[in-house]
Amino acid sequence: MAATHEFKKPFYLGIDLGGTNIKAGVVDDSGKPVSHVSLLTEAEKGPLVGLANLEKAGRWAVQESGVEWSDIASVGLGSPGPMDLRTGCLIDPTNLPRWEHLAIRDLLAQRLEKTTVLQNDANAAAYGEFWAGAGRGCESLVLFTLGTGVGGGVIERGRIIEGRNSAGSECGHIIIDFNPNARMCPCGQRGHLEAYASATALVKRAIEGLESGEKSILEESTKSARISARMIDEAAQAGDPFAIRLMDETAYYLAVGAVSLMNVIDPDVILFAGGMIAAGEPFLNNIQRKVRQLAFPVPGSRCRVLFAELGNDAGFIGAAGWARAVMMDKSLQMSK
Amino acid sequence: MAATHEFKKPFYLGIDLGGTNIKAGVVDDSGKPVSHVSLLTEAEKGPLVGLANLEKAGRWAVQESGVEWSDIASVGLGSPGPMDLRTGCLIDPTNLPRWEHLAIRDLLAQRLEKTTVLQNDANAAAYGEFWAGAGRGCESLVLFTLGTGVGGGVIERGRIIEGRNSAGSECGHIIIDFNPNARMCPCGQRGHLEAYASATALVKRAIEGLESGEKSILEESTKSARISARMIDEAAQAGDPFAIRLMDETAYYLAVGAVSLMNVIDPDVILFAGGMIAAGEPFLNNIQRKVRQLAFPVPGSRCRVLFAELGNDAGFIGAAGWARAVMMDKSLQMSK
Repeated sequence: MAATHEFKKPFYLGIDLGGTNIKAGVVDDSGKPVSHVSLLTEAEKGPLVGLANLEKAGRWAVQESGVEWSDIASVGLGSPGPMDLRTGCLIDPTNLPRWEHLAIRDLLAQRLEKTTVLQNDANAAAYGEFWAGAGRGCESLVLFTLGTGVGGGVIERGRIIEGRNSAGSECGHIIIDFNPNARMCPCGQRGHLEAYASATALVKRAIEGLESGEKSILEESTKSARISARMIDEAAQAGDPFAIRLMDETAYYLAVGAVSLMNVIDPDVILFAGGMIAAGEPFLNNIQRKVRQLAFPVPGSRCRVLFAELGNDAGFIGAAGWARAVMMDKSLQMSK
Repeated sequence: MAATHEFKKPFYLGIDLGGTNIKAGVVDDSGKPVSHVSLLTEAEKGPLVGLANLEKAGRWAVQESGVEWSDIASVGLGSPGPMDLRTGCLIDPTNLPRWEHLAIRDLLAQRLEKTTVLQNDANAAAYGEFWAGAGRGCESLVLFTLGTGVGGGVIERGRIIEGRNSAGSECGHIIIDFNPNARMCPCGQRGHLEAYASATALVKRAIEGLESGEKSILEESTKSARISARMIDEAAQAGDPFAIRLMDETAYYLAVGAVSLMNVIDPDVILFAGGMIAAGEPFLNNIQRKVRQLAFPVPGSRCRVLFAELGNDAGFIGAAGWARAVMMDKSLQMSK
């Protein structure tokens, strides 16, 4: 339990629903987390158990925080998509089988007896960074989250670009190679950024290279264990030429994606998040250098390209922040 | 002079500044143009002559409209970029040499003694379609203008995505081919949509094909005249296989660009404008079909893909509409 006197009222409850875990936390009015809990989603047990777990995680986070339940102004929920943000319903989330068409926002609001807003998980993470992370003080931001896929979030003058069908900000699915032999994206289309620059894609490219006879210290690693993005980065940092090339190509793909969005959104800052940013400063510097080479001079020199700061907390912090933002300005949420 | 009783007060003056011509018109409160005049820019004579011509065009348009000068609520000016929308200054517009760093907004406002807003010409055209053209009734829209280059305009929930450095909505400069052998864009970077899908790029691809020995009825045309996008389309409509392939590839490139932006903006409607839309229904249907093939199911089936409706009037109508929008909601304009 934290000492609540360091924090600024009112408080918001943020919940980040994932396929495996639910993270929840109370966040104060300035974006500072007061508590943080984690619980298994048990998604496979279906939506009723899941909803009970969401409620449990939320109530537990408030209990942990020492904040009175009545001092929680509202609740934000970040969830995997696709969803319909207007009605607050999930559609058919891949990571939550059997949760189809669940009116998740209103059902959770009923359980918690609090106004609840729903947001796409990647958008929520972007909003977290915007409010309290590497994008604080900005007007606009683009976030790429590099993991199994490439998640995206775009904030433009304080508003999340949700899109007319709640399908906006899918920055991993811009087409960076239109050629017929372009890589297949897990979504089933070719040439998407995600097909090149996710952690999964990096590993796939490494395996393909090794199978086609590339020499690398990674050959040894693959014998004993499944190869990971982390291992490729470590091999690169140890000077392995093949791994260096893989990381360099990844930086290039990310710069291509960043510059395409720079030319559309022209944001204050472009952020990269997710496991792959463990590659650290050399990787970031490489992306920054390539962005400057590919960008128009003015946005290229002014737009900051950075790693995100909130790690796995971005989701619940951002969900809480979005609940706060909507409370302060109802027009942020689309209604029709 | 039009009968002003058919129109709805207040009136707005829209001016569309181009490298060759200035178009100006009075537009009523519902987006209906009351008058329309055109004047040479005389850009080469420098900014003082140009400013005098802007004033002249504006006053002439009002005179033509029969609307009292005092009934003009405010003025919107669309101009080629790059510019700084916050300060209302041009930067170094290619089409307006010697107009560098001109405080065009405030100088025109002084001359006309009216509140004046500045907007990028492509954004103004997008706003015109949004307000009174093929996008009326929408919340969000993406416009591609196919001409010498590929211009772009993005409107998201009624706001133009101007960008932090007034460099947003440059939809022609998303990267659709990251490969090192990708086509060079007139902007100096490779692989941009504009390098493949502008009218100029279409002609360039045709000439390259003919030079490399493609058989086509276009060979005859090239002997007597310079080849044009229109001629390629006509050859395609006459059944010429090479020309059909060129138009089909163009439709594909445009679909790739449209889908990338669909996955970021998820707008109500994606529009194509400019000379190339003279290719008509078969070309539009081809783009629509390819968009549906490349898009996610929900936005792919819901987002309308259409040709723009306002032709060359989109610029001044949109500039007037933006003046009106800013008058009604100051927060639309970025101030810092």
